[in-house]
Amino acid sequence: MKKNSESSNNNIETKKLELTSRRDFFKKTAIYSASALTATSILAPVKINADEVEIMEDAQWGIKLGDLVDKYKYGIPSPYEHNNVRRLHDLLSSGDRYASVSMSPLHLQDGIITPNGLFFSRSHSGTAQVDPNKYRLMIHGLLEKPLVLTLEQLKRYPSESRIHFIECPANGSTGWRGPQFNNLQFVKGMMSSAEWTGVKLSVILEDLGLSPKAQWMLAEGSDNSEMARTIPIEKVLDDAMIVWGQNGEPLRPEQGYPVRLLVPGWEGNLNVKWLKRLEFSDKPWHSKEETSKYTMLQANGKAINYFWPMEVNSIITSPCPEVPWTDLKIGDTVEINGIAWSGRGTITTVDISLDGGQNWVEASLKGLILPKSWTRFSYIIKWDGKEKVLLSRAIDDSGHIQPSIDKLIQNVGVEGIYHRNPIVGWSVSSNGEVNNVHVRN
Amino acid sequence: MKKNSESSNNNIETKKLELTSRRDFFKKTAIYSASALTATSILAPVKINADEVEIMEDAQWGIKLGDLVDKYKYGIPSPYEHNNVRRLHDLLSSGDRYASVSMSPLHLQDGIITPNGLFFSRSHSGTAQVDPNKYRLMIHGLLEKPLVLTLEQLKRYPSESRIHFIECPANGSTGWRGPQFNNLQFVKGMMSSAEWTGVKLSVILEDLGLSPKAQWMLAEGSDNSEMARTIPIEKVLDDAMIVWGQNGEPLRPEQGYPVRLLVPGWEGNLNVKWLKRLEFSDKPWHSKEETSKYTMLQANGKAINYFWPMEVNSIITSPCPEVPWTDLKIGDTVEINGIAWSGRGTITTVDISLDGGQNWVEASLKGLILPKSWTRFSYIIKWDGKEKVLLSRAIDDSGHIQPSIDKLIQNVGVEGIYHRNPIVGWSVSSNGEVNNVHVRN
Repeated sequence: MKKNSESSNNNIETKKLELTSRRDFFKKTAIYSASALTATSILAPVKINADEVEIMEDAQWGIKLGDLVDKYKYGIPSPYEHNNVRRLHDLLSSGDRYASVSMSPLHLQDGIITPNGLFFSRSHSGTAQVDPNKYRLMIHGLLEKPLVLTLEQLKRYPSESRIHFIECPANGSTGWRGPQFNNLQFVKGMMSSAEWTGVKLSVILEDLGLSPKAQWMLAEGSDNSEMARTIPIEKVLDDAMIVWGQNGEPLRPEQGYPVRLLVPGWEGNLNVKWLKRLEFSDKPWHSKEETSKYTMLQANGKAINYFWPMEVNSIITSPCPEVPWTDLKIGDTVEINGIAWSGRGTITTVDISLDGGQNWVEASLKGLILPKSWTRFSYIIKWDGKEKVLLSRAIDDSGHIQPSIDKLIQNVGVEGIYHRNPIVGWSVSSNGEVNNVHVRN
Repeated sequence: MKKNSESSNNNIETKKLELTSRRDFFKKTAIYSASALTATSILAPVKINADEVEIMEDAQWGIKLGDLVDKYKYGIPSPYEHNNVRRLHDLLSSGDRYASVSMSPLHLQDGIITPNGLFFSRSHSGTAQVDPNKYRLMIHGLLEKPLVLTLEQLKRYPSESRIHFIECPANGSTGWRGPQFNNLQFVKGMMSSAEWTGVKLSVILEDLGLSPKAQWMLAEGSDNSEMARTIPIEKVLDDAMIVWGQNGEPLRPEQGYPVRLLVPGWEGNLNVKWLKRLEFSDKPWHSKEETSKYTMLQANGKAINYFWPMEVNSIITSPCPEVPWTDLKIGDTVEINGIAWSGRGTITTVDISLDGGQNWVEASLKGLILPKSWTRFSYIIKWDGKEKVLLSRAIDDSGHIQPSIDKLIQNVGVEGIYHRNPIVGWSVSSNGEVNNVHVRN
């Protein structure tokens, strides 16, 4: 619909009068889900304490000028947050610091966006430092117009932005047989989430004339490892993207600057970084990453080579071993907060158990609920000082349910290290300490 | 609904067979809107050029190991992006670098999230560096349980996350009488957008027992300027929040670390940073920021002191003076990309003119369309090498329409410097250069 006239929208004095007289000015929106707060009080009745007021009055930052507004052209976190960093663990790398993985501090993250500085980083030959002026992307094979694009030409395609997680299929690989790590960062930190900007492959391929014979796409990185993976054409045309933007700015080098592939919901290694080449064929490639690695060993000694979508999964992020309940007093109300996600679709339900799986209750989903994206869940309890074993179990709209450890073993055996999505247990002791425990049933 | 059994969701071999046999495995989602690509090709037919292949083969980053995976515990942008930074302009500050504003490079941003390092920064006495261990928040006045909270106590409230822009009411203040600045960063860079995490004030006030007599809330900062603003209780109870998280990590110092007020859609200065105190009363306060400053001068010499919601607005971010079309060839397809926003609700429509307002066409809205949030719009054209004057005009679901300069002057006069939201003009010359022009009608 075209509008050729403008209403008088700036009569601000009138607006103010309306505002104070009309309560319905403030319309509620149903786009976001919210935590369901129980009627209990969060805090016991508290009087304003003279000591607290003294601390406020002593605050040094209020009695002098702060830093210059342009001290940082590109801002940095508060110095008090110096522990909010990514970490390596020798057990989770391939024995060196080039073919390694730096894990995201999930216990310190809110919402469904990971800041770029804390996005987990996995590479096979270190972080390539690509010169965007020398960058080229070749697209060829079974299409009418094969070509080589500069970054500038690529960015001329109409862009779209999507919020999606990326997860290494080895996430959780060490913790599932027994609680080897006693912190959330190493148990589940091989994943992060961002708003990605780029162009859908379906748009490019319509432009370049994809042959109906094309069944597979090879994506190859330009880094030293020449990371290469094969992707079925259905997924390519559904929602795969070539992306250059991450949370509003160019990709970070660790995420494939200037260009990576985005394969929403599928294994992290398919989201090829420092992308150099896309080739289309009627046959798959069986690249080294699909034969010697990223295959799923079975009990019979044979390996499955394709298992792309990341499983339905969830984890409680508060409390967790790094964020215990040791400061709670009996009677305090406290929120159990966590992340659920699925590479197969949208989270529909998260159940919580406080007793190691004997009883389950449904958590509230909160915030934006988007496909192939982190979804936050919440369950509020009153702390009674009794030992607990907290579990969370996610369900998605494809009908998949996050399994127990025993169920997972029954389904896929114990040999493979990838796609380990069993329910994780946090035991809470009577003093509020939290530990990773191995709940089988 | 409770689920007490788990389906067999990890039989991956079976899944693979299903996947390749069922095209409908990939369900479309309607949550995101998308650009409407015309049937024309983005790029003229291109053969793979021997020179381009040579550039690819010469790339040095492919023949050596990259940086160590843990080189940066907290990551940084590519060194090639060193120009993607905030900038000060003397004309837009109060004459010093403490009471000043550092503007966001909107021309280099994608999507609806501003990375924290590039979020615009405005302060009245510099950036306070607050010690979170000494931080206290006092909540008092007309409520049953006045109290002083530590940061830890505050964070015990159930959290929610929302994506909202924050905009200084002076954004666009200098450009509207004439095109004083010839770049997007200074024309509209006093705003940014983030996913904020914190607790809704309605939740806290239910807990603390707000008196029905309370009509106003004072919010006071702990920085040297003691920034203080008054907010009507309807807005406080509707969607105002106390926030500690910004894009998944603690607030940046420039945004009020560790705690700021979030008043979605309303003037930036109401979103008080380094928040120290909230007081509830039956009368307004008339703080210095509501009398000597942030008031709206009228033609009759009197000033309106309250005019909270930011106006419906839009700006074309590509092309713009910093992102011209000088590399386009005649016949190339190119996307006009921009941001629309309104503090009064949700964007419903953005119209585009290519001829300075004589004719208008409707743009596509793309990505997430959320209330009081940036909304991206898109319109795709074929470049014909002819001079153009590009305009964008946003409409929101409260019925407000972004006005022309003449309409704005007719409505509110020329005296005030705040809430200047007229349609901005970019002229495009035949060689693709872009300049800020002053389109009156």
